[in-house]
Amino acid sequence: PTKPRNHVGTHVIRSAVSIDKEILLSESPHTLLRESDGDGNAIRARFQQMIMKAQAIVCEAIEEVDGVGKFKEDAWTRPGGGGGISRVLQDGAVWEKAGVNISVVYGMMPPEAYRAAKPAATDLNPGPVPFFAAGISSVLHPRNPFAPTLHFNYRYFETDAPKDIPGAPRQWWFGGGTDLTPAYIFEEDVRHFHSIQKRACDKFDPTFYPRFKKWCDDYFYIKHRGERRGLGGIFFDDLNDYDQEMLLSFATECANSVVPAYIPIMEKRKDMPYTERHKAWQQLRRGRYVEFNLVYDRGTTFGLKTGGRIESILVSLPLTARWEYDHKPEEGSEEWKLLDACINPKEWI
Amino acid sequence: PTKPRNHVGTHVIRSAVSIDKEILLSESPHTLLRESDGDGNAIRARFQQMIMKAQAIVCEAIEEVDGVGKFKEDAWTRPGGGGGISRVLQDGAVWEKAGVNISVVYGMMPPEAYRAAKPAATDLNPGPVPFFAAGISSVLHPRNPFAPTLHFNYRYFETDAPKDIPGAPRQWWFGGGTDLTPAYIFEEDVRHFHSIQKRACDKFDPTFYPRFKKWCDDYFYIKHRGERRGLGGIFFDDLNDYDQEMLLSFATECANSVVPAYIPIMEKRKDMPYTERHKAWQQLRRGRYVEFNLVYDRGTTFGLKTGGRIESILVSLPLTARWEYDHKPEEGSEEWKLLDACINPKEWI
Repeated sequence: PTKPRNHVGTHVIRSAVSIDKEILLSESPHTLLRESDGDGNAIRARFQQMIMKAQAIVCEAIEEVDGVGKFKEDAWTRPGGGGGISRVLQDGAVWEKAGVNISVVYGMMPPEAYRAAKPAATDLNPGPVPFFAAGISSVLHPRNPFAPTLHFNYRYFETDAPKDIPGAPRQWWFGGGTDLTPAYIFEEDVRHFHSIQKRACDKFDPTFYPRFKKWCDDYFYIKHRGERRGLGGIFFDDLNDYDQEMLLSFATECANSVVPAYIPIMEKRKDMPYTERHKAWQQLRRGRYVEFNLVYDRGTTFGLKTGGRIESILVSLPLTARWEYDHKPEEGSEEWKLLDACINPKEWI
Repeated sequence: PTKPRNHVGTHVIRSAVSIDKEILLSESPHTLLRESDGDGNAIRARFQQMIMKAQAIVCEAIEEVDGVGKFKEDAWTRPGGGGGISRVLQDGAVWEKAGVNISVVYGMMPPEAYRAAKPAATDLNPGPVPFFAAGISSVLHPRNPFAPTLHFNYRYFETDAPKDIPGAPRQWWFGGGTDLTPAYIFEEDVRHFHSIQKRACDKFDPTFYPRFKKWCDDYFYIKHRGERRGLGGIFFDDLNDYDQEMLLSFATECANSVVPAYIPIMEKRKDMPYTERHKAWQQLRRGRYVEFNLVYDRGTTFGLKTGGRIESILVSLPLTARWEYDHKPEEGSEEWKLLDACINPKEWI
């Protein structure tokens, strides 16, 4: 199988959807699904169960390493069904800002998106089609400039079968990835991180890691800088040309790999001594993080346009960031090495 | 005259232009115009002269108040003509980052933009038309949380007469504005600032201040927050339905009003004692500044897409900024009052 041609699916949805205003809940719900989606064997229910579990596991691991900070939880629903649960730890000992969000969206998608989802469907011409989307999204920003920021996101889209075309099938696809954004390179850390991503990929398909590693380098690209946001990992979108059960297992494996990929690095770096210079460079790289997320990241720009819950969407932004005019690290310095690896992505394993 | 209907002009240009890579100069040029534009009586030459003078006057006033910081100058040209001069003061005693840039662009605009510039021209159908654009753009971020950020920008666009349509005229328009972004409200400061803007407007047309004040409130709107970036001022775009000499004088008057509008406020606020709380709130508002500039500001998003000089475009970003999850100022507090005025724009004079 090659990189899917149907890359337009999610994008068309993103340009056309607008979401009801959220209603905050006083306690966390057991499900964000509509009652009619109660069948626990359906993929949407199993995917929700997976992301809820991943949210719990990651938050527990973060709290344990942090020792001080605790996650605060906000949950909401929407009148049309769906909702979200945000967990945010701020001002911890190790992490200055860590967000782990899950959300479920029900909406209507334009016919183009349905047609784009599978080449075979291009001759079908339905009206607007109801869709379901669920995902987990997380950004973890540590204090220590030698400790890397981590981002991961796994999501599942599914349409109903169009009612106006007898026999037209339901469409579905998976997307997501996990990537690492350090301010300084420790090769052993980056190799460890990429090895865990490769191990998760290799359990399913030997082509996954090389494809999704490159996809990640291509996606997290700050075009106006000619730099990637960080040192990559894996990224994939609109994935549907494999067995659905296989892809659910793959997304699950990826989500389960977050803790073993990230926590050992944090244990090593969280208490390393550092100077003002290291902190200032970390802050400049956090500025690049803000530039990518506000200018290019599809999830963020989509969320801002469609009226998603702003505080949950923007929890990905660092606690603090810095922009100096025309800053250029000295050639050969540790800062320069990081920048070079962001400009010229490397093979780490 | 009413608000011009031809608002599309600049926008169509912005979506279609791509700029040559800049070449840094070792010293500042006397002109950024092509030699063929050497006629000092033409509007483009007089506008360039005006923005060069404004750049000098504003930088001199800033350096005098700052006492410590000095502007560093970078100048560049482009192979096809045009270029820019950036002056940036960083790490001053009063301002942590202050940028005052001028630039001149020569390019080709698509026929739609030409047609949109004047209703009478909609039946003309030329090929791509050469255009000229020149502007001054400045953002001044002080250290003290009681001292406001100032932004101003004045620009002039002009097309050639389309060669393929005998008798079709040259088109031109002016745009710009000056606006104030404090973290705390001192009513006397905001009234002073708006009064100077009104005085500049009233010299030309009594409808200018109320129209351009509202236009400013509408433009500097962070849609996903439902907040304005700051407390406004004046803003106008695509202005061409007045005498051209009058509008050149008006833009000149506005640029000359920057120092009397801003410097007296800075003199009063630059040394006020403040606490960590004040600084943290200023930093959160700087985060909003970043959100507006990267997500909505046309000059910034245009510049990032078309390959303008990135360091000059992004000098508008603050030295540092902050994002806290779900921060809400206490009702009735000074922070809340500022936020309220950003959500519900007020008449200050």
